[in-house]
Amino acid sequence: MSAMLDLAAIDARDASDPLRPFRQRFMLPEGTIYLDGNSLGAASPSVLAELEHAAKVEWADDLIRSWNTAGWFDLPVVLGDRIGRLVGAAAGQVVVADTTSINVYKALHAALSLRPDRKVIVAESSSFPTDLYMAEGVVSTMPGASLRLEEAGGPALEELIDQSVAVVLVNHVNYKTGKLRDMAAVTRRAHEAGALVVWDLCHTAGAMPIALDSAQADFAVGCTYKYLNGGPGAPAFIYVAQRHLGKATQPLSGWWAHARPFAMEPGFAPDAGIRRFQCGTQCILSMRALKGALDIWEDVDLEAVRKKSVELTELFIQLVEEKCAGLGLTLESPRDSDCRGSQVAFRHANAFEVMQALIDRKVIGDFRAPSTLRFGFTPLYIGYRDVWDAASVLADVLRTEVWKDPRYAVRTAVT
Amino acid sequence: MSAMLDLAAIDARDASDPLRPFRQRFMLPEGTIYLDGNSLGAASPSVLAELEHAAKVEWADDLIRSWNTAGWFDLPVVLGDRIGRLVGAAAGQVVVADTTSINVYKALHAALSLRPDRKVIVAESSSFPTDLYMAEGVVSTMPGASLRLEEAGGPALEELIDQSVAVVLVNHVNYKTGKLRDMAAVTRRAHEAGALVVWDLCHTAGAMPIALDSAQADFAVGCTYKYLNGGPGAPAFIYVAQRHLGKATQPLSGWWAHARPFAMEPGFAPDAGIRRFQCGTQCILSMRALKGALDIWEDVDLEAVRKKSVELTELFIQLVEEKCAGLGLTLESPRDSDCRGSQVAFRHANAFEVMQALIDRKVIGDFRAPSTLRFGFTPLYIGYRDVWDAASVLADVLRTEVWKDPRYAVRTAVT
Repeated sequence: MSAMLDLAAIDARDASDPLRPFRQRFMLPEGTIYLDGNSLGAASPSVLAELEHAAKVEWADDLIRSWNTAGWFDLPVVLGDRIGRLVGAAAGQVVVADTTSINVYKALHAALSLRPDRKVIVAESSSFPTDLYMAEGVVSTMPGASLRLEEAGGPALEELIDQSVAVVLVNHVNYKTGKLRDMAAVTRRAHEAGALVVWDLCHTAGAMPIALDSAQADFAVGCTYKYLNGGPGAPAFIYVAQRHLGKATQPLSGWWAHARPFAMEPGFAPDAGIRRFQCGTQCILSMRALKGALDIWEDVDLEAVRKKSVELTELFIQLVEEKCAGLGLTLESPRDSDCRGSQVAFRHANAFEVMQALIDRKVIGDFRAPSTLRFGFTPLYIGYRDVWDAASVLADVLRTEVWKDPRYAVRTAVT
Repeated sequence: MSAMLDLAAIDARDASDPLRPFRQRFMLPEGTIYLDGNSLGAASPSVLAELEHAAKVEWADDLIRSWNTAGWFDLPVVLGDRIGRLVGAAAGQVVVADTTSINVYKALHAALSLRPDRKVIVAESSSFPTDLYMAEGVVSTMPGASLRLEEAGGPALEELIDQSVAVVLVNHVNYKTGKLRDMAAVTRRAHEAGALVVWDLCHTAGAMPIALDSAQADFAVGCTYKYLNGGPGAPAFIYVAQRHLGKATQPLSGWWAHARPFAMEPGFAPDAGIRRFQCGTQCILSMRALKGALDIWEDVDLEAVRKKSVELTELFIQLVEEKCAGLGLTLESPRDSDCRGSQVAFRHANAFEVMQALIDRKVIGDFRAPSTLRFGFTPLYIGYRDVWDAASVLADVLRTEVWKDPRYAVRTAVT
């Protein structure tokens, strides 16, 4: 073990960590090392308080009036602007609505509406699948449209972008490997070819500073239940650059997208601003929970988050490679932290069983088929000592081969 | 005042009302007569308990594991089947997902996929507008498709259905007037012409027995935050008849619609059953709240609900016409209760101001532009005495002309 990595040094890093106080603002079960906040973020008293107020006061007592008095109807744009500050978007360009999948559909249609003479959508075969499925859905309704995928071993995404391409749908960080794309560079490349870009920020929003406006991004989508800690299935968001507002159209033209939703007109007339990217009535209880989560983010320095995130992931890679040398692990994430999000993936031939054994020892990461162990590092509530302990437990599970216990091979419906 | 309508008789009806005990299962502010449960249903301890458990135990303590252990992933189909029992649908045909607007889009596309040689969508100009806006959205992505509307004073909906019509999108009860359509008759008429029907059940689910299967309905959508009391913006549902499952397709093909969502395959392969009509990750906190609301419905006899609903609306019409005679009101709802849902609309030249004055006196209905006073009657928590009192307050507001107070003319953003 290198001198740098002794336990006293690790604990000293926690003691001097400027983000350490945030841990007290989250609820985590005692003794658990939760490395899955990149899949479902932790709960907080802030969220629970908002949820309780929304249910017991705004709904139960004030009933229908809360659409006005509690500002329910405007929550999507109010919270959208707050997320905007976390992703580098000036006000009026982000709205919280629906799901990431639905927002991919809106964004792709909107991009295609701005490039009516082009019909090709470029995406990654390694994408989180729902993005591809939604792109297929768009293609299915649009004669002549097609999907061009970056495949493993084939030409890079950038090389697929030519004058026939309307839009590039790209993950900022890959859900599995943690590979981080250069937003400004990919966007520039697309724009040079006259194409637009939709960025999927599911694995970066709340994990690092993002500069949508300065990167000249066109559209972005993302979820709020991972690093943003909005709660299970919390509503998603969509970003549309100011220059496209009022021009881009999308077919999920529900009443919340109307210029005058309460005039109850029979014909659709889209809102001129970001509300055009809403559709129907939103889940207000989940939306109010998200407000509680975003309250915490008001106090967070995203540069500090990224700095710690890089340190945590580097430390984890270093510790695992030291402690687990020769035990069958291969790093799947980029080694260069400039090209890596806030997660680390290792391959192991028995990744499923190994992860079950880890979870049994209260180190919670997740498994991704066929052979990936994925660990997410959420700097607001994960510390350096957690990383040390997680790597130690992983080494123990592998060295003792306890993962061979048959009970760890039992597959549940959802993995 | 007729002898039949003296107060003692009214109170006797409450005393012998078999649904009266349900009132104790809802939370309503003291002294308020809430006649807007057709817009936002009342809260209940059952919902609050589920919500608290979902947030504090399933999320905060069990974190990501709750996708399995708390059955989060299956909630949409589990709750879908429970709603199915309320709308006359056998198991496996209803899923809770997204919003009514989104589900209209799915259902219209699905119907069009089953009638590829037809391109006309018939709908009502009097429809709740979002249905029309979504139909416009569908038409915008489908070359050759068009929308044919039933207009006031023009041919009836049934007369618009010919061999060119793929699908009829129709409201079971009109959101404004309360006009109730004959589901079996309209469906039969559409089928005779080879068309399919999408029923919008927003204003009937939980208000009366519905027989989707026996009416041979094709598709239906509905919300859960009105009569079903699922909470503000609670997730919507969609019904697809068994005979169309596995055949009908819809382009919002997100990962929850995939046959193997956790295999993370790059290509979309739709689930063979109702899950195909899901899209992305759902708001679990709102979904869990809905479960609490549906628990109450397990004990409800919908025939008794309809019987009381008819009595409440008939009583209200009778009382208002007696107490408010000559005070400027005109019944806008059908007088025949066989053609009326669980709501009553009256026109008044100053409906906005009159409703504000009513709300100030704790009789909460709502205003619909330009001149409708709308009152909803939710038999689980509204009694006969409430109807008497509401009619009395309305008469008082009109007789004293207190609604002329300038403060009642102030318009808020959301009305």
